[in-house]
Amino acid sequence: MDAHKQLTIGLFGFGVVGEGLYKVMHQTPSLNASIKRICIKHPGKKRNAPEELFTTDKDELLNDPEINVIVEVIDDSEAAFQIVSKAIRNGKAVVSASKKMLAEHLAEVLEMQQTTGEPFLYEAAACASIPVIRNLEEYYDNDLLHSMKAIVNGSTNFILTKMFEDKLDFKQALILAQQLGFAESNPKLDVEGYDAVNKWTLLLAHAYGILDNPNNIVFTGIHNIQAGDAVVAKEKNYHIKLVAQAQKLLNGKVAAFVLPQFVKNDDHLAFVRNEYNGVVIESGFADKQFFYGKGAGSFPTASAVLSDISALRYQYRYEYKKLYHHHPHELTHDFFVKVYISFDDLKYVPKESFEWVEEWHAMEERKYLVGVLPFRELAEKTWWRENNNSLILSPEPVIEDIEIRKLKKKSLELAGLFDWN
Amino acid sequence: MDAHKQLTIGLFGFGVVGEGLYKVMHQTPSLNASIKRICIKHPGKKRNAPEELFTTDKDELLNDPEINVIVEVIDDSEAAFQIVSKAIRNGKAVVSASKKMLAEHLAEVLEMQQTTGEPFLYEAAACASIPVIRNLEEYYDNDLLHSMKAIVNGSTNFILTKMFEDKLDFKQALILAQQLGFAESNPKLDVEGYDAVNKWTLLLAHAYGILDNPNNIVFTGIHNIQAGDAVVAKEKNYHIKLVAQAQKLLNGKVAAFVLPQFVKNDDHLAFVRNEYNGVVIESGFADKQFFYGKGAGSFPTASAVLSDISALRYQYRYEYKKLYHHHPHELTHDFFVKVYISFDDLKYVPKESFEWVEEWHAMEERKYLVGVLPFRELAEKTWWRENNNSLILSPEPVIEDIEIRKLKKKSLELAGLFDWN
Repeated sequence: MDAHKQLTIGLFGFGVVGEGLYKVMHQTPSLNASIKRICIKHPGKKRNAPEELFTTDKDELLNDPEINVIVEVIDDSEAAFQIVSKAIRNGKAVVSASKKMLAEHLAEVLEMQQTTGEPFLYEAAACASIPVIRNLEEYYDNDLLHSMKAIVNGSTNFILTKMFEDKLDFKQALILAQQLGFAESNPKLDVEGYDAVNKWTLLLAHAYGILDNPNNIVFTGIHNIQAGDAVVAKEKNYHIKLVAQAQKLLNGKVAAFVLPQFVKNDDHLAFVRNEYNGVVIESGFADKQFFYGKGAGSFPTASAVLSDISALRYQYRYEYKKLYHHHPHELTHDFFVKVYISFDDLKYVPKESFEWVEEWHAMEERKYLVGVLPFRELAEKTWWRENNNSLILSPEPVIEDIEIRKLKKKSLELAGLFDWN
Repeated sequence: MDAHKQLTIGLFGFGVVGEGLYKVMHQTPSLNASIKRICIKHPGKKRNAPEELFTTDKDELLNDPEINVIVEVIDDSEAAFQIVSKAIRNGKAVVSASKKMLAEHLAEVLEMQQTTGEPFLYEAAACASIPVIRNLEEYYDNDLLHSMKAIVNGSTNFILTKMFEDKLDFKQALILAQQLGFAESNPKLDVEGYDAVNKWTLLLAHAYGILDNPNNIVFTGIHNIQAGDAVVAKEKNYHIKLVAQAQKLLNGKVAAFVLPQFVKNDDHLAFVRNEYNGVVIESGFADKQFFYGKGAGSFPTASAVLSDISALRYQYRYEYKKLYHHHPHELTHDFFVKVYISFDDLKYVPKESFEWVEEWHAMEERKYLVGVLPFRELAEKTWWRENNNSLILSPEPVIEDIEIRKLKKKSLELAGLFDWN
């Protein structure tokens, strides 16, 4: 594509994001881009755009030689993959917002893209308006990136904020989120952490060159969190957030997960309330950087798509430097985490799995303990998210393999003749 | 420069930033870059690098055909301009951290650079470790950028934080900042706002395509702020920050200034404490984005320089899209600002200049008022920063020309027979 070339766009999807994009583009004439055709699934609906733009035949877009950019903002991840695949094969630049499709198919897409070389951009797929992929690609492109932690799902963060600040219970908060348009009518994807782990999979590729399937990343959502957990958090002056985290260990491998976590009041992520997203990047010498903005919604997502379209004018493409030019990092499960776990009945908590236990509280109904687990326990077992158990990571949860002996010794000395029954 | 070419660097300056960079580069072998020679001003000092690297002859670097990158991190802005000019003419890529030099000479530097085309990067010159220039260049490159406000000077922010939170007076806070290395021994540049306006000049070029001299931007520092102002701020639940602000007006022109400002508790900038920097970017559809990180210091600055060096491997260069590819914006003084001003004696405050006055308080020693001024009054007169007057902008200070009549009418109705003596 030549510099500043006219971009002729074929758009798939005219839901909230697609329509938002259509509006945004009309207010950005300098973009030198126009939407030639829009492919939709259900014809006959009343839509705020000229009728002649719409078609239900995807090949009218994919096979049109005049269309040089395919923008895909549909909900169905398998259909999105088919569209993107054919667009790439047909030599078109592609902009996508489908995090699920990308998380599941990134390796395949990259392989296809290698053969054609056309740009494939998807900033909108992670944290919407926050340019986190672009910054990981361009600015944190060396090997100094130590850790990254983030709130990447606005729906769950909204629910947690309402549970904490307005004392709503989980169900009330969810209903409010749905009423305000921050949660889908089927909230499983958000609430059980699927959406967050999909985004995290993408960010791991750009941050560390890790191309892995979301299924290999340990995650859960906020659906097990209990009112009693919020009480404990308050007592300790913590917030509860669904935190996506990745951290380079001393052995060069990367610990990564998406789990509920206690966040201290002065943590950057405590600043992230309601439907917002935030990303904290810690690099070797710059210390902590914090990026904050709207992580979802029609216009924030459309604006990220727009920035990608804008970048196409200048032949911008992701370089995947960590993947192709550096030695890519590997995920590991060989480390330890300090966890809080509350439960109805101790019989559902395997005490023998803990390295040590630091706290033990019996409340009226719920009991909880704070202790240290090998991370493999979370990767390989399911007890921690079953039988009404609620697991929340401590602040700074990661303990390196080589530190565990020393810390265990110290902890057991402190505990003395601790009897945890 | 070919892709992934070996970068051979000539470094000017081995102060805190230069030495920091030297250390950082030793820990980033993947960078494929090496420092061949370091030019210093004062030979014979003990330095933490092999002696044979050093020279006092700048031509040994500038005329060395093997050196393809000049990195300049010296204090003397005129010397820096000479070095950068010659480096550009000699066809070398340049990385600079000299905000004062850049703010004063950007137009000339760009003209020179146009003739050679080699990259010239300077992310470290504004907000150090926060990649704000890069994001304005790459991500906010369309015409949707509405406003931008920021804390760009860490020293003054540290002093204000200490005045507010630890109840130090200005002098004590300044001494503490100096002891901790956050303020120069000659603090005038920071405290009187020169450093901030230099950075703001640079960011205006990348945000709006405005190439103007820092002298044309209305600014002051924090040296006039009084203990009484902090008391008022507390009462109103405000912080006082030195805020650099730019805002696109309805007429398409840009209002820009660097002035003390009252900041509400829930404003993003209230989160920015001590020596940190923060930038809030508001664009048409993405709403507010917030970038936060260390804005000064040896390693954060060195890490920004390092990211620029890293970008050179991929031929990255600023496009100045707002300047060259869009219709660049213009600065204007034709708008109004709502200000708080405290004073020892009313005779030093020209009442006739105010459109209207909304508040009037006489305390034991200091008096203050809150009112609306044409911005031209600040641009063309000096009374507001003389005779112990202290001017602090209200939150959301900008009032558009076309709104002023309506607001004035309303305000005068509310005030009734207000007599402000």
